[in-house]
Amino acid sequence: MQRALQLAELGAGRTSPNPLVGAVVLDAGGSLVGEGYHARAGEPHAEVGALAQAGERARGGTLVVTLEPCCHQGRTPPCSQAVIAAGIARVVVAMADPNPQVAGGGLAQLRAAGIEVITGVAEAEARALNRAFIHRISSGRPLGILKWAMGIDGRTALSNGASQWISGPEARAWVHQLRAGCDAVIVGGGTVRADDPLLTSRGQRQPEPLRVVLSRRLELPAAAKLWDQSAAATLVVHGPEAPAAAAAALEKRGVPRLELVGCSPRLLLEALALRGCNQVLWECGPELAAAALAEGCVQELAAVIAPKLMGGQPARTPLGELGFTSMAQVRSWQAQAPRHQGSDLLWQLSSPAELEP
Amino acid sequence: MQRALQLAELGAGRTSPNPLVGAVVLDAGGSLVGEGYHARAGEPHAEVGALAQAGERARGGTLVVTLEPCCHQGRTPPCSQAVIAAGIARVVVAMADPNPQVAGGGLAQLRAAGIEVITGVAEAEARALNRAFIHRISSGRPLGILKWAMGIDGRTALSNGASQWISGPEARAWVHQLRAGCDAVIVGGGTVRADDPLLTSRGQRQPEPLRVVLSRRLELPAAAKLWDQSAAATLVVHGPEAPAAAAAALEKRGVPRLELVGCSPRLLLEALALRGCNQVLWECGPELAAAALAEGCVQELAAVIAPKLMGGQPARTPLGELGFTSMAQVRSWQAQAPRHQGSDLLWQLSSPAELEP
Ligand SMILES: NC(=O)c1ccc[n+]([C@@H]2O[C@H](COP(=O)([O-])OP(=O)(O)OC[C@H]3O[C@@H](n4cnc5c(N)ncnc54)[C@H](OP(=O)(O)O)[C@@H]3O)[C@@H](O)[C@H]2O)c1
Ligand SMILES: NC(=O)c1ccc[n+]([C@@H]2O[C@H](COP(=O)([O-])OP(=O)(O)OC[C@H]3O[C@@H](n4cnc5c(N)ncnc54)[C@H](OP(=O)(O)O)[C@@H]3O)[C@@H](O)[C@H]2O)c1
Ligand SMILES: [Zn+2]
Ligand SMILES: [Zn+2]
Repeated sequence: MQRALQLAELGAGRTSPNPLVGAVVLDAGGSLVGEGYHARAGEPHAEVGALAQAGERARGGTLVVTLEPCCHQGRTPPCSQAVIAAGIARVVVAMADPNPQVAGGGLAQLRAAGIEVITGVAEAEARALNRAFIHRISSGRPLGILKWAMGIDGRTALSNGASQWISGPEARAWVHQLRAGCDAVIVGGGTVRADDPLLTSRGQRQPEPLRVVLSRRLELPAAAKLWDQSAAATLVVHGPEAPAAAAAALEKRGVPRLELVGCSPRLLLEALALRGCNQVLWECGPELAAAALAEGCVQELAAVIAPKLMGGQPARTPLGELGFTSMAQVRSWQAQAPRHQGSDLLWQLSSPAELEP
Repeated sequence: MQRALQLAELGAGRTSPNPLVGAVVLDAGGSLVGEGYHARAGEPHAEVGALAQAGERARGGTLVVTLEPCCHQGRTPPCSQAVIAAGIARVVVAMADPNPQVAGGGLAQLRAAGIEVITGVAEAEARALNRAFIHRISSGRPLGILKWAMGIDGRTALSNGASQWISGPEARAWVHQLRAGCDAVIVGGGTVRADDPLLTSRGQRQPEPLRVVLSRRLELPAAAKLWDQSAAATLVVHGPEAPAAAAAALEKRGVPRLELVGCSPRLLLEALALRGCNQVLWECGPELAAAALAEGCVQELAAVIAPKLMGGQPARTPLGELGFTSMAQVRSWQAQAPRHQGSDLLWQLSSPAELEP
């Protein structure tokens, strides 16, 4: 099963709206004779690949698969029939398919065909691997990850708006990787106006995740990196209150747009689920982030914390104004390894220059 | 030397204005025959204790000490003479005494008496152990540590001011320990008005660190935990602009005060250095914290970060208002172990309820 989970992970970021699935086939003697994983929606399911590799050696053998084999005709024929046809004697699965079109039906077909079925093996790992798929199936919305980068004093920009770069190259590369595991990356109009971001995985995911701008007013810049649809697809999403002239201007620029019945994070995610998204990344500013949280559209947070004291107007934040006008003036402090104190994190820094006066 | 450093640390938080010092004596055959450390200003120096324990067995032996023995008459007689009188043949020291009254003079006296002197053994550890003393000697101001507790979104209070408790019991106990290692704990008038803090080590240090309030206006509450001088000594510090009536009111309440030529963090630290402080803890709010940083009065930061998204008015912070009115409404998220990405910290959290919908 561990090997099957490893195989499943090879499809990460590319199988949506489908789950990640890995499978191995053992022959009657227990030797590994086939491996497969689901690489992309529309391509063969994991079981089919593993059974094909095993061929005649599957007869009387065991299929180990991270998710219940499907029993419905989708873009590919049902796997349950393929398993039965291959003469498999025993099927070991990590978890039932939460998809209501399957939901135990695949296992029932196998059992009816006289195949021994064992379930729940490494179920926790399998659920964690497919938590985005499970969330989408059960809630109708993709799993939401909120990501931000901040100084240790909770600042995401200097008082004059300068924010490039708060985090270092390693953390920024990690964010590209995080994007590669997501089906869409979402910002609000404010972030487009302030930062003109690119929001791609820098080629780590093909196709790039869909870039989504949620905007009420549609007062968006005429030129923006996001409007270049050759780098990645961008979709501007708005509600009925958006001015028709602004919508027309977008269309003229060749930027696809989607009108919802209301400009809300939850409605946006429902629309993205219908477009096959299992997992989305919120890379917006404080306003939309708070709205997304309030509407239950954030399940995970990735906070990148730089060892920098940036300062700013106090809004119940730890530091007041420090007078910096460019990120180049903000120095990194020397950091110790963070430690847990109960459920809190303790991070101790030393000033860059003054430690040894 | 490792044993001598361990001994030195036993005096932590109690030797100011003196450094931490530990010493061991080995006899001519290399056996440990004496141990000592400096436990408190006015009490015997580490070398004297170790030599007394060794007695006649020190003759022809080795003294290992974390700091150059002193050569000046202070509250206790110079140790260099005691070392010579004990017949020690070899002295191993970690670092020279940065105190200009000593600064190599002790080692010179030993060498002049024919004693072999070896320096620089475990010097980095010894310097780290006494970094506060070294900072105070070289700058004239105690080492400043700035401590704060915040939610993962950089908030130190909710929009309505509620802030008890952001961090959990373990982190709060750790802060009591941190205070025990400091000679004074400093807040501004704003924190006294908002939080009515106690600011003690809960008995871990005797006497408790001096509690200092820096205030320009002296508009301080008539009743406050800090005014109870039986829990710990409190000193209110202000500049010449403070209203005479307010100063008189403090005196009537029996609260000691100190007037400086200006109400500045740097002048305060100079005054505290003269009162024997090697290390102080800034536990103030954003306004005074920024002033202390701007005046070079902060060398170390201890940030306690709770896995809580508190929200608030955005001031270039990661989150906008979330509408909480009591800390009891703010839930802890499930946290992964933090990881470094380059010099940044990556902390990933999962929402408490929504992970498994
Ligand atoms: N450090 C980081 O990780 C990071 C990441 C992103 C952004 N930022 C910073 O955040 C700042 C921008 O903040 P922001 O709050 O203006 O950006 P934002 O949250 O990305 O955008 C806010 C905008 O979202 C749109 N929106 C649509 N529906 C909404 C709803 N239901 N609730 C709230 N907003 C909705 C509105 O756009 P319209 O006004 O167009 O109608 C609103 O003005 C910039 O300084 C940027 O640098 C930092
Ligand atoms: N989460 C935490 O770790 C933590 C810790 C402490 C405080 N807090 C929060 O911080 C908030 C209070 O913030 P605050 O900024 O008002 O508190 P503060 O920084 O402790 O106090 C500011 C006050 O310091 C005095 N001060 C004297 N000299 C000064 C100088 N040179 N520069 C600046 N200030 C000087 C002034 O007092 P006068 O007005 O009396 O003249 C000034 O109003 C409260 O909400 C509290 O809960 C949080
Ligand atoms: Zn299938
Ligand atoms: Zn001495």
